[in-house]
Amino acid sequence: MPDAVLSAIRFDAAGLVPVVAQQHDSGEVLMLAWMNAAALRETLATGRLCYWSRSRGRLWRKGETSGQIQRLVELRVDCDGDTLLALVDQQGVACHTGRRSCFYRAVREGALAEIAAPEIPPEALYGGEGGPPAPARAADAPPPGTGTGG
Amino acid sequence: MPDAVLSAIRFDAAGLVPVVAQQHDSGEVLMLAWMNAAALRETLATGRLCYWSRSRGRLWRKGETSGQIQRLVELRVDCDGDTLLALVDQQGVACHTGRRSCFYRAVREGALAEIAAPEIPPEALYGGEGGPPAPARAADAPPPGTGTGG
Repeated sequence: MPDAVLSAIRFDAAGLVPVVAQQHDSGEVLMLAWMNAAALRETLATGRLCYWSRSRGRLWRKGETSGQIQRLVELRVDCDGDTLLALVDQQGVACHTGRRSCFYRAVREGALAEIAAPEIPPEALYGGEGGPPAPARAADAPPPGTGTGG
Repeated sequence: MPDAVLSAIRFDAAGLVPVVAQQHDSGEVLMLAWMNAAALRETLATGRLCYWSRSRGRLWRKGETSGQIQRLVELRVDCDGDTLLALVDQQGVACHTGRRSCFYRAVREGALAEIAAPEIPPEALYGGEGGPPAPARAADAPPPGTGTGG
């Protein structure tokens, strides 16, 4: 069934497409991550967001370590099929720092200022589960320096 | 002044960073495009969104042909600095199809359905200006098959 969707999507040379995750009711943009065809198929089949971790080179089921899952409310495709917009219901926080959104820094007078505080201590997201070390961006993402959302 | 911002941004191997453009008041996600350092500097200096057209290989001042410009309200940076969120005030429509947002298709029962109609005939965006042929995604973007937002 999702083949009609997959065929409309233009994956890049690495077989990936960027996905903007937006909280469906508030409109808050939570994060940007990537999917390959398998991640997209799984997301459509399960209704839970599954991305492709570029750094770890494997499927990344959002929330698999932190518990901060994203349920899919609606998946949208842009006009030329090379970007997806996922309307999601984010459980808890999207960002590995414990903040609701990964976009918590804004340009203020030529510098970056933090505009949101953590809602959950990052240690609480990963500490007790034997998960990965402090991830880079979204909750569950890989270590710093390894790319957008894994 | 924007050096403090630029230094926080991790451009990819091609010197680019993805930028999500969101209407500042409604929260609607309008499009995704790319910036290099020059585009980002210009955007911060002028307060008008300037992207990097990947297909044309040049700066793309959003609205330069169509008149559908984006004024910058706030620029946000994600936790690992490799994605930007631009809160904008979109003049008219963002999409070259005449629709407000490029994300006008949604998955419905395993296929893509159009969920928004054009607000402006595409011909009206480009017809009288001797601009580029029907662009790929965002208003002013390059021909199909050439990449996200140019």
